[in-house]
Amino acid sequence: MKKNELFEAIKVTKSFLCVGLDPDLTLVPSRFNTAVKLFDFLKAIIDSTADFCVAFKLNLAFFESLGPPGYTLYEKVLAYIPQRHLVIADAKRGDIGNSSIQYADAFFGRSGEASRVDALTVNPYMGKDSIIPFLAHKDKWTIVLALTSNAGASDFQLLKLAEGSAVYEKVLQESSTWGTPDQVMFVIGATRPDMLASVRKIVPDHFLLIPGVGAQGGSLHDVCRDGWTSFCGLLVNSGRSILYASSGSDFDLAAAREARSLQLEMESIIAQKSVY
Amino acid sequence: MKKNELFEAIKVTKSFLCVGLDPDLTLVPSRFNTAVKLFDFLKAIIDSTADFCVAFKLNLAFFESLGPPGYTLYEKVLAYIPQRHLVIADAKRGDIGNSSIQYADAFFGRSGEASRVDALTVNPYMGKDSIIPFLAHKDKWTIVLALTSNAGASDFQLLKLAEGSAVYEKVLQESSTWGTPDQVMFVIGATRPDMLASVRKIVPDHFLLIPGVGAQGGSLHDVCRDGWTSFCGLLVNSGRSILYASSGSDFDLAAAREARSLQLEMESIIAQKSVY
Repeated sequence: MKKNELFEAIKVTKSFLCVGLDPDLTLVPSRFNTAVKLFDFLKAIIDSTADFCVAFKLNLAFFESLGPPGYTLYEKVLAYIPQRHLVIADAKRGDIGNSSIQYADAFFGRSGEASRVDALTVNPYMGKDSIIPFLAHKDKWTIVLALTSNAGASDFQLLKLAEGSAVYEKVLQESSTWGTPDQVMFVIGATRPDMLASVRKIVPDHFLLIPGVGAQGGSLHDVCRDGWTSFCGLLVNSGRSILYASSGSDFDLAAAREARSLQLEMESIIAQKSVY
Repeated sequence: MKKNELFEAIKVTKSFLCVGLDPDLTLVPSRFNTAVKLFDFLKAIIDSTADFCVAFKLNLAFFESLGPPGYTLYEKVLAYIPQRHLVIADAKRGDIGNSSIQYADAFFGRSGEASRVDALTVNPYMGKDSIIPFLAHKDKWTIVLALTSNAGASDFQLLKLAEGSAVYEKVLQESSTWGTPDQVMFVIGATRPDMLASVRKIVPDHFLLIPGVGAQGGSLHDVCRDGWTSFCGLLVNSGRSILYASSGSDFDLAAAREARSLQLEMESIIAQKSVY
């Protein structure tokens, strides 16, 4: 799925929502509290939210913590996501070149269900040669962490460099030259909407994956004020506030309601921005 | 295994070698070219090098690229490594707090074979709250990437901050306050031995995991010149140059020869440093 195709999907769905699939055994309704039963939970979540989103993001941390059954669950979920959706593996990988080649293979080079992954999040700390192996898969998206939504973003990402820019700005400047806007996105946390104007000066042509709306406190309208572009340019992720909207037997209806509410807010923004 | 116990193991073994297990299907002798057969290859490597090293490091990239059979292989290898060795999972994980809790569980919170992991490499880009969940496992080692051995280290890690230090120095300064020297190590690439003096000014009390000796061109003597401490303080990793010392049927003998040669060099350095 290229940039234009993603924009088309956003216009058709009237949504730039990405639903984050973070299956947490301690938060799901108790009847789903094994790795095997989690599939039924995620299946119900996908069924009830698919009409309101353009992407699903699987957070590998929550699958890996289940051990080998988690990997089976991951592949079953990949197989179940409708073909029209963008699928993001949120794994934050990155290593020296010959190891990154292996990680790229693990996510982009597989056959069967695992080939369903369209995009992978990567960590830029180790520099260009740690990211290039992912970009070699030109039909896939490499999503580079730039400015994350957590408090710890201020420890290193926000520090000023002697040359003037902040570390995260330098990451955007450099890594945006490593691939095309058809294969590179950036993670920018919704908890820092005041920085989106400076982000857009550096990367006006790229999609941004925006976590942190909902449970983490970010606001959709703040994000769109400075992050919006002529091609929308935003994928806003919401996970916990959709998945765990209710811990009762109405969890799927509550998830649908939450996703639908975000989609309606997005539809109204899209209308305001006169995107047709 | 605490810092003192690791130092004891180094004195007994007369070695501070870590053997890096990077099972690459394209490099192993052809009779081992499936995920299942790779176990026999790694078993032979462990058997032939265990006497010459104090640690084994499993590079997750090479296991993940094999798909689900790679996970089975990973657990079988964990179960096979002798109890006296430190076991490092080189996975370079890190995410926002609630996801890092899951990654910490995946590597440090498991039962059975998977509980054999003593140490995990983590990426500091997302800051303190992304690393704290690993440090909550106080009996395990969290190994923070600081200055890596690849060319891309110069893209961000070596940049000067406005406050004067380089980014990697700031990572050392900050993250060394997050846990004790009994639970935190740092990755410092052997390809930059000239920087070890400045590293030791910041972290005199910590073990360093040093990749890049051998195939990547780093020199053992250069590393020890400025990196050595009263408790040794170094774990020098060598992977490819041991595992793939020969592609013939003598691969295990060649691996033993290579590991033995590094151990003898280390024994001579230990003797020079008067460590008894």
